[in-house]
Amino acid sequence: MRTRFQQGLDDLRTRLLRMGGMAEQAVDRACQAYIDRDLKRCHMVLEGESQINVAEREIDELAFDLLAMQQPMAVDLRFILAVTKINSDLERVGDQAVNIAERVMDLVELPVADLPVDIGRMATATAAMVRRSLESFIEGKAELAQAVLEMDNVVDRMRDEAFISLVKVMNERPDVTRQALDALLIARNLERVADHATNIAEDVIFWVRGADVRHNVQQENPPQEITRRVTGI
Amino acid sequence: MRTRFQQGLDDLRTRLLRMGGMAEQAVDRACQAYIDRDLKRCHMVLEGESQINVAEREIDELAFDLLAMQQPMAVDLRFILAVTKINSDLERVGDQAVNIAERVMDLVELPVADLPVDIGRMATATAAMVRRSLESFIEGKAELAQAVLEMDNVVDRMRDEAFISLVKVMNERPDVTRQALDALLIARNLERVADHATNIAEDVIFWVRGADVRHNVQQENPPQEITRRVTGI
Repeated sequence: MRTRFQQGLDDLRTRLLRMGGMAEQAVDRACQAYIDRDLKRCHMVLEGESQINVAEREIDELAFDLLAMQQPMAVDLRFILAVTKINSDLERVGDQAVNIAERVMDLVELPVADLPVDIGRMATATAAMVRRSLESFIEGKAELAQAVLEMDNVVDRMRDEAFISLVKVMNERPDVTRQALDALLIARNLERVADHATNIAEDVIFWVRGADVRHNVQQENPPQEITRRVTGI
Repeated sequence: MRTRFQQGLDDLRTRLLRMGGMAEQAVDRACQAYIDRDLKRCHMVLEGESQINVAEREIDELAFDLLAMQQPMAVDLRFILAVTKINSDLERVGDQAVNIAERVMDLVELPVADLPVDIGRMATATAAMVRRSLESFIEGKAELAQAVLEMDNVVDRMRDEAFISLVKVMNERPDVTRQALDALLIARNLERVADHATNIAEDVIFWVRGADVRHNVQQENPPQEITRRVTGI
């Protein structure tokens, strides 16, 4: 028979995954909105934001209740702390989607410009990072999380390429400066989504390695320091 | 006589404030580096980043140890959770300082451009937000935290003005596009620092209101939902 505490942990995990799904969907919709110049999808992203905010607060409250309920074991404690951190990152992924949607709403009023940037490809890469970071969390596997950290370099490179080519466009074609700037900022938002996926992967490593430490009874051995990704251009 | 647990809470508070001081200093140095085109300060910011990362990890570990040590009371629990969240935000404030320093390192290679943006004024406003959000934490006062949320609108307006005038520069003076873009991105980094201060203020409200709820013995009364600030342009 499962205890109330264990049911609470399962509930926490389920809610966090649902939150992850909402955040992923928001980014996907915002990027599709950019590609199709689709205002309807922008509004869906804006409307979804408050749901994500409510879900975040509910997860925090549930985590709080579980910590208050009884003395959790070290591995559960580390899991609950990881959840509260992943929770914040997912909410901020949702914020990035809102930023992208707002850029698109600005952009649709301007003439279409052919720009040397593949937002769709960058969106696919960042979506994969978010999905895999959540998979590493579900499976509790540090090596999956490690793979996410490596994928971040790919997205950073895409962002750098976008930056260089779009600044060139701004210099050479003043008539599409605004469109190029919007594309640059969307590329930057996607890179920040990738950074949140990286943070999630780091939290999974913190949680899993902590569990390993506990199993090996090496109490004084802290998790390996991971250099935090510096976000942004 | 203070218990080991209470000493731990004091230690947690002291370390978080020290971390806050490091993050504030990093932003201040990066903005001074922009104003003076000073590479030396840029390097100080980059070197300080790893110290901030180590401090973040230590605070997380201490929070974990305190939660594991004994059954904390609800108000202490909420305090510890707030600390872990504020901790993440301060680390990201440090990241923004690094981003600004990197922009400055890019900028010093370019000719000086007279631009219609007052980074110094924006830096002062955001620094005040970070400081007051930490004050609201030290004092445990929701009304101080509320004032930080209102200051965020001022910084957002500054960022909007910077955006509009710098895009105009990019259109009209292609020779300084790059400098204008660097200034725009620095303004955006500062706006994100302000958003982190807002997050900290929200966490203080979560902590303080939770404490109030406990004092009023209204266990089913959740903290008021606060609409999370959407970051970025």
